[in-house]
Amino acid sequence: MKISELGEFGLIARLDRAAQKARAPRSPSGRRLVMGIGDDAAAWKPPYRKIELATTDTMVEGVHFLTGTFDWPDLGWKSVASNLSDIAAMGGVPDYALVSLCLPDTVEAESAEAIFHGMLDAASRYSVAVIGGNLSKSGEIMLTLTVVGHLDGSAMLLRSEAKPGDKVAVTGSLGMASAALPIMKEAIMVGPEMATLFKQAHFRPEPRIPEGQALLRAGVRAAIDISDGLMGDLNHICEASHVGAIIQAASVPIDPEVREVYIENAPAYAMLGGEDFELLFTAPSNIIEKVKAELKVPVSIIGDIVSEHPGKTMVLDVDGHKITPAMPGWDHFKRR
Amino acid sequence: MKISELGEFGLIARLDRAAQKARAPRSPSGRRLVMGIGDDAAAWKPPYRKIELATTDTMVEGVHFLTGTFDWPDLGWKSVASNLSDIAAMGGVPDYALVSLCLPDTVEAESAEAIFHGMLDAASRYSVAVIGGNLSKSGEIMLTLTVVGHLDGSAMLLRSEAKPGDKVAVTGSLGMASAALPIMKEAIMVGPEMATLFKQAHFRPEPRIPEGQALLRAGVRAAIDISDGLMGDLNHICEASHVGAIIQAASVPIDPEVREVYIENAPAYAMLGGEDFELLFTAPSNIIEKVKAELKVPVSIIGDIVSEHPGKTMVLDVDGHKITPAMPGWDHFKRR
Repeated sequence: MKISELGEFGLIARLDRAAQKARAPRSPSGRRLVMGIGDDAAAWKPPYRKIELATTDTMVEGVHFLTGTFDWPDLGWKSVASNLSDIAAMGGVPDYALVSLCLPDTVEAESAEAIFHGMLDAASRYSVAVIGGNLSKSGEIMLTLTVVGHLDGSAMLLRSEAKPGDKVAVTGSLGMASAALPIMKEAIMVGPEMATLFKQAHFRPEPRIPEGQALLRAGVRAAIDISDGLMGDLNHICEASHVGAIIQAASVPIDPEVREVYIENAPAYAMLGGEDFELLFTAPSNIIEKVKAELKVPVSIIGDIVSEHPGKTMVLDVDGHKITPAMPGWDHFKRR
Repeated sequence: MKISELGEFGLIARLDRAAQKARAPRSPSGRRLVMGIGDDAAAWKPPYRKIELATTDTMVEGVHFLTGTFDWPDLGWKSVASNLSDIAAMGGVPDYALVSLCLPDTVEAESAEAIFHGMLDAASRYSVAVIGGNLSKSGEIMLTLTVVGHLDGSAMLLRSEAKPGDKVAVTGSLGMASAALPIMKEAIMVGPEMATLFKQAHFRPEPRIPEGQALLRAGVRAAIDISDGLMGDLNHICEASHVGAIIQAASVPIDPEVREVYIENAPAYAMLGGEDFELLFTAPSNIIEKVKAELKVPVSIIGDIVSEHPGKTMVLDVDGHKITPAMPGWDHFKRR
């Protein structure tokens, strides 16, 4: 059934029921909720004396995802996960999500529900309650999420806290989310199992929420999540902290699948491709050793924060020569 | 300069500076702010032990406003005001706003700034700090606002608290915001001063924030803001409260300008047109008398809550006959 047939309020009622079912009443955020979807605003009791956090982000059809390359629930998952990743990059605990779903009214109501179920899956996975939102007609698909969370102490992870002498480190491995694009567009051909792995990495990122909290506890104060790409996000840290960074290209952890498929082009995806949603952080060596001992995910030291060339990142190859990574263009290729 | 020339981060830097300038550091929300625009998430100290509120809403080009009928700052004002109105309809105090601005990259950067200035004007007017957001390319203009606020006590205004025996009342007067549409589309011709008044009513609504708080203090517990239209929003109350409503058409307060321009069609705009952002509420007579004495804006009693026909509103004319208001169709007319 098209949304235009079911109507705005009919669809909202369905989504509301799904959100209520998905909500864990015994989770801390669920217990503190006073009013969810269905009134003019949602209401909750805040965790007393704790600093609160809020972030918002939008995914637009044709800009953040291409028509025809996605499954509906994946869109929902990714829109929630990318916002949760921003809370993770502050070292915070996500609590509540508000959803603005803009869809052409020719979309099937079932597709809208499938997007919403993907949102609820990601929210439930991280004990986040979807407590409000709105539904609107639009020409293109647009999903805007706002997530409210809190910090357990008074410290937080900021972009502006990197200091010369800090090591630069990153959780997990990089490149797969962006390297999935040429595969999904069929500019690069791989087997179906490999294609599924890439698509999963692209649409189902796992925000590093416990990791962000562990960084804070270990004493890290400077971090960002990798959404624009390692180089771009490290530049954000350098600009906000008025420091420079030097990266050893050989130390950047590359997803093994990216290495296997892209060979010599793999480092470009790891360094320039975005949306891996790993945490990029800086801290003195002893704190990074503490982080390494505590986290279950791998942590790689990839470079240093310096006082030179503030706002900029320099990349060195194994011989210590300065290099400028560039994205490969795949438009001409149909197969490698 | 087009946004595509200035770039996402260049424009964000400009908007950030404007938001910082507009923020009142001595306002309660300004003092509690820990981190505004510029990191992964915004951070603030909550007002201890107070219930918090959050709401989100989106305006889409071609759906909520027509290309060519608006001034850029008006869009920004309206997007903030409509969200603040939802906080008002809970009886709350708005504190913080997060903005998602989706624009075609052919839009001038100055236009994007003008939208944002309109947002900041509305936010400042009600002591709200714009603390975060995101900017994205899109095919059509879309503005999503999320507002976080709080309640001063434990009570709030809900849609579900109307009781049989309550009177139905409304603040201010109705009809002008929707009656502006045929005028802006030039299906109805009026003089330039009158046209300006209508446009102002459409794009520059004043959310009833102090009024919502006063309703709560006076003991009102059931309210909604008029965004879908008096009949539609009263039905939302009836559905949520499992009650019926009977409205005296002659008691509905109609904007005098709507009466002057639309004559016999004026009541339809007041009853069915939306976006007046007045407060519609129900309470026993003695509480409504208290409200009338306290509020500076007029309060009109327009009908009764009954136990009959739950979920539905009945409209009676001066002779007590049931009537069914219908919107006039103006498509055929070029002038009256």
